[in-house]
Amino acid sequence: MDFQTLIPLVIPGETKIAMIVMDGLGGLPIEPGGKTELESARKPNLDALAAQSILGLADPVAPGITPGSGPGHLGIFGYDPLKFEIGRGVLEALGIDFELGANDVAARGNFCTIDAEGKLIDRRAGRIPTELNAELTKILRTIKLPGVELFVETVKDYRFVFVLRGKGLGDGLTETDPQRVGVAPLPVKALNAKSRKSAKLANAFIAQARKLIGAKKPANMIMLRGFAKRPAIPTFRDVYGMRAAAIAVYSMYRGLARTLGMNVLKVDGETIADEFTTLEKNWRAFDFFYLHVKKTDSSGEDGDFLKKARVIEELDEQLPRLMALQPDVVIVGSDHSTPAILKAHSWHPVPVMLYSRYCRADGIAEYGERACARGSLGRVRSKEIMPIALANALRTTKFGA
Amino acid sequence: MDFQTLIPLVIPGETKIAMIVMDGLGGLPIEPGGKTELESARKPNLDALAAQSILGLADPVAPGITPGSGPGHLGIFGYDPLKFEIGRGVLEALGIDFELGANDVAARGNFCTIDAEGKLIDRRAGRIPTELNAELTKILRTIKLPGVELFVETVKDYRFVFVLRGKGLGDGLTETDPQRVGVAPLPVKALNAKSRKSAKLANAFIAQARKLIGAKKPANMIMLRGFAKRPAIPTFRDVYGMRAAAIAVYSMYRGLARTLGMNVLKVDGETIADEFTTLEKNWRAFDFFYLHVKKTDSSGEDGDFLKKARVIEELDEQLPRLMALQPDVVIVGSDHSTPAILKAHSWHPVPVMLYSRYCRADGIAEYGERACARGSLGRVRSKEIMPIALANALRTTKFGA
Repeated sequence: MDFQTLIPLVIPGETKIAMIVMDGLGGLPIEPGGKTELESARKPNLDALAAQSILGLADPVAPGITPGSGPGHLGIFGYDPLKFEIGRGVLEALGIDFELGANDVAARGNFCTIDAEGKLIDRRAGRIPTELNAELTKILRTIKLPGVELFVETVKDYRFVFVLRGKGLGDGLTETDPQRVGVAPLPVKALNAKSRKSAKLANAFIAQARKLIGAKKPANMIMLRGFAKRPAIPTFRDVYGMRAAAIAVYSMYRGLARTLGMNVLKVDGETIADEFTTLEKNWRAFDFFYLHVKKTDSSGEDGDFLKKARVIEELDEQLPRLMALQPDVVIVGSDHSTPAILKAHSWHPVPVMLYSRYCRADGIAEYGERACARGSLGRVRSKEIMPIALANALRTTKFGA
Repeated sequence: MDFQTLIPLVIPGETKIAMIVMDGLGGLPIEPGGKTELESARKPNLDALAAQSILGLADPVAPGITPGSGPGHLGIFGYDPLKFEIGRGVLEALGIDFELGANDVAARGNFCTIDAEGKLIDRRAGRIPTELNAELTKILRTIKLPGVELFVETVKDYRFVFVLRGKGLGDGLTETDPQRVGVAPLPVKALNAKSRKSAKLANAFIAQARKLIGAKKPANMIMLRGFAKRPAIPTFRDVYGMRAAAIAVYSMYRGLARTLGMNVLKVDGETIADEFTTLEKNWRAFDFFYLHVKKTDSSGEDGDFLKKARVIEELDEQLPRLMALQPDVVIVGSDHSTPAILKAHSWHPVPVMLYSRYCRADGIAEYGERACARGSLGRVRSKEIMPIALANALRTTKFGA
């Protein structure tokens, strides 16, 4: 079902939907036959909620596809990730609250280390501190290119954002990171005629950057990736008719939410508990809440099985604070799997549960991958969950007579 | 899978398929954690059949979508409700056995009450009795419009059917019901060039109707909704190569079946037992039988949980009469859910079971929502069931070499 079918069915309501996204939640047992991170976590509150919920396994993009953070989130927000795309450059720009114009071309930049012959030694310049990054971007900002404005903004460690602003700039560009050391960074190539001007400008920028920071080892060179323009994408209000709020500590997720027209709320602090405090403070003002938990993913990426389980336990301890607000619908799910034993995003479908007074609960008192495989929600695409949430919130009307 | 794929695979056969549609069957427990209407009904015969069947949960249109009766039935008959559409006006006309021509434009009419300024006071004219409706439609039938024939037929209470018959009539028309009181009914507007003539005629009809019944308070005005022509839709014989028969007491379902080219059988009486008598009498003459049970839906709409359960029990008592005929395939399912606690159609997937000698039964000896959630049919779209039924009836051949 597409938005054209759904949008005419959406009706106003007073009900509230809360969606908890534990990033990279889906996991794997350390030894086949064992328990996953989620299954081995002590999580009485999630299990109690599961007993009142419908459970299922969701493929963020499609079965067998390992999603990036962008597609993973689009899916759980009900946007078909095969149809809507948010480029890496845009995600990075959004992540630092950079206000991208409709025609801006953004790229993710990495400081890196090259040798005397120009070959890569370290693709991340020894993960330089953010302070050094800030000094270097200051230097790069002195670069001038004919006919366009340019922006160079520090993100964190070795990462920055590069933005070209002007007329006639396409974003069909190849990236300069060869993805391995021992070779020189690649030139930017235009993938279509309308991106030739952007390619020329990006290459000119790189050439000048190399001159300006060539002596600043380890960060003596830059690479640019994920050139992209802001996508034309309908907002949460356009599609679901809801005032949506995002509670996320990491900037990329805040940026993603902003792209969908969500109100990005201020979180005092960085813990899950701090996020729930923000949820409580803003409960009256919005209809939909997206609460993002980052550390399930980052501990998975670090290969830290036990830490990932502990992050889930930390979320579990906070869950009663949400339930005390008496939400009409609660979704607990994820954008993708990040099994600790793989130390990376994976293709595994993510466990999801949806609670409401009217959900027709499965009566399965456990939230885990194999428990979810037995649930009545079945195996779904992530994008199918939002219409079910909307229906459970009594925010849609009948299709056809 | 679409019809283009399926139709070439259909082969002739002597086997018989019976489909029991308990309207609005899917339900909800009164209190979360309790049993649904179906789960609480005493139904030994359905449960025994379940043990020999494959079970699943079917979404009539798509997950989270609450279907109208038209889309719900199209789905279970194997027609994609997102592709085929039967307009409200057509359903109303079919419901009173009005023989719609291929170019007729039908609308559902409501008698309503307006004040001296023409603003709506009651959108249903105080739900006037059918007898008064019949008097008023008699008056409206005196209206003449240039170049077209028109029909005004009483349905029930405040509802009537309005049909325009003539050449060059499009059905791209807006409705006149503003969906709230305190404002005047809206004019009919053409949504495309080929519907301009229809719009003009409909507005002329409304203007004359207002003059004729303006003094007949409370029913002193009319509104028209759901303008539609008979859809171009392949018949059951076209798609499945079967002689299909419909056994339904309510006219709308008889009309729906007729639209798909089914033979609508005469039922002596109004009970489920009477429907089974019709089934027995006509068993030899057809390959496919659609048997419709209305009161599961109407008791659900009335919020009568116990009565809905009792209707299921009534069906259960009759089931052995079908099984005695030795059908090759039996489908027991529904067009949508109507949980008594919601008093309305809902989005919940419907429990479905499919019996045949070759179905590879799940061995789950219960027909209920949660039992079906565990079945091997899984969570499917309703439209996927008919190809499975056809296969189990050995009425399709291999796809590809």
